[in-house]
Amino acid sequence: MYRTKTCGELRIDHVGQQVTLAGWVQRTRKMGALTFVDLRDRYGITQLVFDEQKNPALCEQAGKLGREFVLQVKGTVNERFAKNAKIPTGDIEILVDELQVLNASEVPPFTIEDHTDGGDELRMKYRYLDLRRTPVRQNIELRHKFCLAVRHFLDNKGFLEIETPVLVGSTPEGARDFIVPSRMNPGQFYALPQSPQTLKQLLMVAGMDRYFQIVKCFRDEDLRADRQPEFTQIDCEMSFVEQDDIISIFEEMTKYLFKEVRGYDLGEQPFIRLPWSEAMRRFGSDKPDMRFGMEFVELKDVLSGTGEFAVFNEAEYIGGICAEGCASYTRKQLDELTNFVKSPQIGAKGLVYARVQEDGTVKSSVDKFYTPEVLNRLKETMNAKPGDLILILSGPDAMKTRKQLCELRLLMGSRLGLRDKNKFALLWVVDFPMFEWSDEEGRLMAMHHPFTSPKPSDIDKLDTDPASVLADAYDMVCNGVEVGGGSIRIHDAVLQAKIFKVLGFTPEKAQEQFGFLMNAFKYGAPPHGGLAYGLDRFVSLFAGLDSIRDCIAFPKNNSGRDVMLDAPSAVDDKQLDELMLEIRSAEK
Amino acid sequence: MYRTKTCGELRIDHVGQQVTLAGWVQRTRKMGALTFVDLRDRYGITQLVFDEQKNPALCEQAGKLGREFVLQVKGTVNERFAKNAKIPTGDIEILVDELQVLNASEVPPFTIEDHTDGGDELRMKYRYLDLRRTPVRQNIELRHKFCLAVRHFLDNKGFLEIETPVLVGSTPEGARDFIVPSRMNPGQFYALPQSPQTLKQLLMVAGMDRYFQIVKCFRDEDLRADRQPEFTQIDCEMSFVEQDDIISIFEEMTKYLFKEVRGYDLGEQPFIRLPWSEAMRRFGSDKPDMRFGMEFVELKDVLSGTGEFAVFNEAEYIGGICAEGCASYTRKQLDELTNFVKSPQIGAKGLVYARVQEDGTVKSSVDKFYTPEVLNRLKETMNAKPGDLILILSGPDAMKTRKQLCELRLLMGSRLGLRDKNKFALLWVVDFPMFEWSDEEGRLMAMHHPFTSPKPSDIDKLDTDPASVLADAYDMVCNGVEVGGGSIRIHDAVLQAKIFKVLGFTPEKAQEQFGFLMNAFKYGAPPHGGLAYGLDRFVSLFAGLDSIRDCIAFPKNNSGRDVMLDAPSAVDDKQLDELMLEIRSAEK
Repeated sequence: MYRTKTCGELRIDHVGQQVTLAGWVQRTRKMGALTFVDLRDRYGITQLVFDEQKNPALCEQAGKLGREFVLQVKGTVNERFAKNAKIPTGDIEILVDELQVLNASEVPPFTIEDHTDGGDELRMKYRYLDLRRTPVRQNIELRHKFCLAVRHFLDNKGFLEIETPVLVGSTPEGARDFIVPSRMNPGQFYALPQSPQTLKQLLMVAGMDRYFQIVKCFRDEDLRADRQPEFTQIDCEMSFVEQDDIISIFEEMTKYLFKEVRGYDLGEQPFIRLPWSEAMRRFGSDKPDMRFGMEFVELKDVLSGTGEFAVFNEAEYIGGICAEGCASYTRKQLDELTNFVKSPQIGAKGLVYARVQEDGTVKSSVDKFYTPEVLNRLKETMNAKPGDLILILSGPDAMKTRKQLCELRLLMGSRLGLRDKNKFALLWVVDFPMFEWSDEEGRLMAMHHPFTSPKPSDIDKLDTDPASVLADAYDMVCNGVEVGGGSIRIHDAVLQAKIFKVLGFTPEKAQEQFGFLMNAFKYGAPPHGGLAYGLDRFVSLFAGLDSIRDCIAFPKNNSGRDVMLDAPSAVDDKQLDELMLEIRSAEK
Repeated sequence: MYRTKTCGELRIDHVGQQVTLAGWVQRTRKMGALTFVDLRDRYGITQLVFDEQKNPALCEQAGKLGREFVLQVKGTVNERFAKNAKIPTGDIEILVDELQVLNASEVPPFTIEDHTDGGDELRMKYRYLDLRRTPVRQNIELRHKFCLAVRHFLDNKGFLEIETPVLVGSTPEGARDFIVPSRMNPGQFYALPQSPQTLKQLLMVAGMDRYFQIVKCFRDEDLRADRQPEFTQIDCEMSFVEQDDIISIFEEMTKYLFKEVRGYDLGEQPFIRLPWSEAMRRFGSDKPDMRFGMEFVELKDVLSGTGEFAVFNEAEYIGGICAEGCASYTRKQLDELTNFVKSPQIGAKGLVYARVQEDGTVKSSVDKFYTPEVLNRLKETMNAKPGDLILILSGPDAMKTRKQLCELRLLMGSRLGLRDKNKFALLWVVDFPMFEWSDEEGRLMAMHHPFTSPKPSDIDKLDTDPASVLADAYDMVCNGVEVGGGSIRIHDAVLQAKIFKVLGFTPEKAQEQFGFLMNAFKYGAPPHGGLAYGLDRFVSLFAGLDSIRDCIAFPKNNSGRDVMLDAPSAVDDKQLDELMLEIRSAEK
C-alpha cells in the first residue's frame, strides 16, 4: 500500500504517530514560513504542513504543487494550533518529512469543490473529475448503501437474486427496443430488455417463489429531461400472493430503507392507499405529492349556471385550489401564474382567481359575472379564510383540466415552501384502469402491461365494457414521484388470451410475440405478482437531487450520448460486413 | 397469501395444526383407500393424504391430479406412520380437508426429478420446467448466496459497488464487440462492454479508491463449449496499491467465500504463487490443476543422444510424467492414451511409455533403442517406483509439447481419481509475459490487456527487448480453472503511450481509441490495479458442475441462441428503417 492511513481517519489520538498518506492536492497556501497543503481522498481531507525553516528544499517542492497533483507523503501527526471544527480531521495536521509526487495534473477544467464553476456539459465530459467532488461522490456512496440494504432486506425475506439475460428477444408491445445484430445468426437481432417482466414471470412458473434483481433496463425513447436510455430497476416477483401481500412486504422494505439508509422514520402507520380515480379527482395526478394538501375542490355546482360567465357555464369541469395566505399576491404575481397555466406545456385557456379579503368579502377576476352571494358560496365551498387566494381552472375535458390544475397546485406548493426535500410522503395508488384508449393506435392499450390481471370482480366486464375494467395494479408514490409499480399477473392461459384479444392481437400474433410465455403457462403457472422500483429515481429522492443523473456514475445526455466516452460512434466497415449490415444513406 | 406454511417447513412439532399449503404435484400414488400426493415448492416436499373413507369426493378429485398441477390445500398436520428420514418434512403429512386446483398442467416433456430423462435441448427449451428440478434450483440458490457473500465482504473492506454503463463505445482491441445501432445518432453504434476495464480505471482517476461490481459482460466470440456470449464478472479495482495488496485482499475474500458459502476451509497458509514460466515448465499450463502432483520431468539430458531413437534425438523438448501404480495398464489402455494424445485436439505425434516392473527393471516401448542403463536413469530421474507407468511426449516446440503433456496429465489425474470435485487447490500464477506474438496480426499483442503495467524492473527492456518484458499481472487458479485475473495498471500517460507504440498503435490511433482514458490520466491518475473473477465459472466450481450453464438461469446454446425465447430473431422492417439499417442479402 502506498499509505498507512487514509486522509479521513486521523484524530487527536494519533498525535505523534508516523504515518504515510496518499491523495490529491485540494489546495495549497503559504503563510509566512509555512506552506499548507490540503490532501484529499475519498475518505476526507488532511492538512499537510511544510516548514521552510526545518526543510527549505521540501518546502520549495511543496510550493510547486498544483491542484489535483497525486502525492504520497510521510510525516508525523501533530495537534493543530488553529483547529477546524468543520472537518473530522480538523484537530490535527501532518508535519511532512518526505514528499513524492506520484502523478502531476494539468489544471482541471473546473474547480473540484462542493460548488463548482463547471457547467453541465463540461462536468459530463470530464465526469471522472466531477466524481471527485464530495456531493457527487456522496450520491454514489448512497446508491451503494441503498442497494446493499435492498439486498439485505429481500434476502431476509427469502427472495433470490437471479440474473436474467440482457440479450433477449424483441417484444414490440411497449416502448421501442434497442436491438443487437447477431453475427452468428445473420439477419437476426437480439433486443435489450425494457424490463425482465416476462423472464421473472417464467421464474415464477419455474417455482422460484420469490425473485428479485437489481438490473439494467433499456428503452430507446426520445429522451426527456431526466430519462436515460439505460436505467436500473429493483425488479421483484412473488408467487402465491395477492395484492395485499405485495403491498405489505414492500411497504415494510420502504420503511426499512428510509430508516437504515436515510435515517428517516416513516412511522408505524400503513401508507395511504388511494384509488386511481380518487387520486385524479383530488390531485389531478396518478402520483400526487402528498407532502401538502391544497386539494382540488369541484366547483361546477357553485359556478356553472349561477352567473353570466360563459366560460364556466360551458365548462365540463371547474376546479379550484386554495393557496393559504396568498391573497396579497400582486397583479404581477397573478399574471405570472396565468402565463404559467397558459404556457404550451400546461395548455389551459386562462386562470380565474379570487382573493378572500380581511373583511371576509371575496374579490375576484370574474366579479362582474357573479353576485356576492355566489362568491361567498365559492369561499365557503373552498373552505377559504381571509388572506387566502382561490385559483380556478375550467375546461371541456375533466381529465385534462385536472392535470393542468395539478401543475398549478405543484407550483403553488413549491412557492409556499410546502415541498421540503427532507420530508417524505408515501402512498399507494391502486385500482388503475386496465386499459386506456390510444388515438394513435385506434385501440385499447394496456395501461400497465398486457400481463396485468384485471380485478377478479371485473373479469365479467371484459366482454361487455372492457374500458371500465380495473386492474389489480398498484404504484408506490413518494413526493409526487412514482418510485415503483406493479401488479398481480394473469396466470391463466385462457384469461391471458382474452386480454390479448381486447388489445387487438390476433391469436397468431399473440402466439408469435408471447408464445414462450403462454406455452409456459400450460405447465402449472402459480398465481403471482410483483413490482419494480426505479432505482435511479428512488436514490435521487433520498439524495434530494433534482435530476437522476447525479446518482449515476456515467450518465448519458439528452441525445443518448456519453460525451466522456464519445459513444455512440461509427464502427469499422469490417464489423458491419461481419454482421451483414449496411447503413442506409440519408435520402429525402 | 395462498398459504400459511411452505412445503419445506412442517416438523413433528406442528402436529395438530391447521395449515394451508400451495405448490406443485410431484407425484401421486394410491394405496388402498388412501391417496398420497407429494406437494413440492422451492422449500421442500410435503406429503398430502386423502382418505377415501373420510371424504370420497375429495379423494376422487385427488385421484385425477396430474404431475405439475398447482394446488392449494387446507388440512391438519399429522404424524406419519411410516416416516421418511430422507426429507426434513418426513415425520409428518397433511390430512387434507380442502383442495383447490389453482392451475392444471399438461404432461411435462421430461420428468421433474433430480435425474431427469430430458436431453439438453429439451431442458433448455423448457428451461422454466428444468429450473423446478432440485439440483438446478440449488445452483441458482448457491449463486445468490455467493453474490451476497461477495458483496458483504467487499463492503466491509470499503469497496463501493458502482454501476458502469452497458451502452458504451466500441474498442477494437480484444475480442469482438456486440454493437447496438443508435436511432438518435443514425449510422452510429454503441458497443456492449467486454468488461468495464477502462471505466473502472476512470473510477480510480475519479478517486473512488475501491470499486467493485457484479456485472454482465459481452463477447461476440465463436462459442466453444462452456462459453456464453453474455457472462458475469466480479469486477474489482483499487487505488494506491501494489500487487501484494491486491493478492492479499482477494485471497482473504476467496477463503471467506469458501468457508461461508461452501463450508470448505482453505486453511491459514497463503496460496502458492507460481511464476508463469514455472507453471508452464512444471505443468505445461498457466492454470495448473494442483489437486495432484504428477509434475513434468524434463528428460532431454536422459533420452536425447543417449540412444538410437531419432524422434528423441531430434526433439527440442522431451518431458515425462509418472502415473503411480499404472504399470499394469493393458495394451488396450495404452493404445487409448496414444490415440488421445494423437487426436487433433491434442496433436502429438506419438506417446512413449515405460513400465517399472515389480523387480525394478524398466520395460518400455523404446527398449530397442536404449540400454538398460539409460532406462534405469530414466526411472531414477522420474523418481518412479515399481508398479508405476512413465508417459513421455516430445516435440520440436517446447511450449506446444508441454501443453500436450498437460492434457495427458489431466487425463491421468482424472483416471486415477485425483481430481475430486470436493477438494480445492488454489494458487496464484504471477509474472506473466507482457506480450505474446500474434502470427495473424504480425505484431506483439498484449497478453492481458494494453493497460497492464510492466514489472517496474522490466520497464527498461521495453525499448530493447519487449518480448522478454514481464507484466505485473496475476491469475487466480482453482482446480485447473482460471477463476480470476488482473494486473497493476499503468497510471502514467508516458508509459501508456510507450506500450501502445510496442503494440503497433500510431499515436493517432491510440488517441482515437483510448483518448478518453489517456486524457483522464493527465489529471492526476493514482497508482491502481485490480482484478476480475468469472462469476459463472467460480459458482460452477462451488457447485461441482461440468458446465457453467447450469448455474445460469437462462443460458444460451453454442450458437448463441436462447432456444426458450427463440432469440435472436428477425425484426420489423419499420424498426430497421428507424435505425437507417439494411440487411445485406447473402451473396456468393
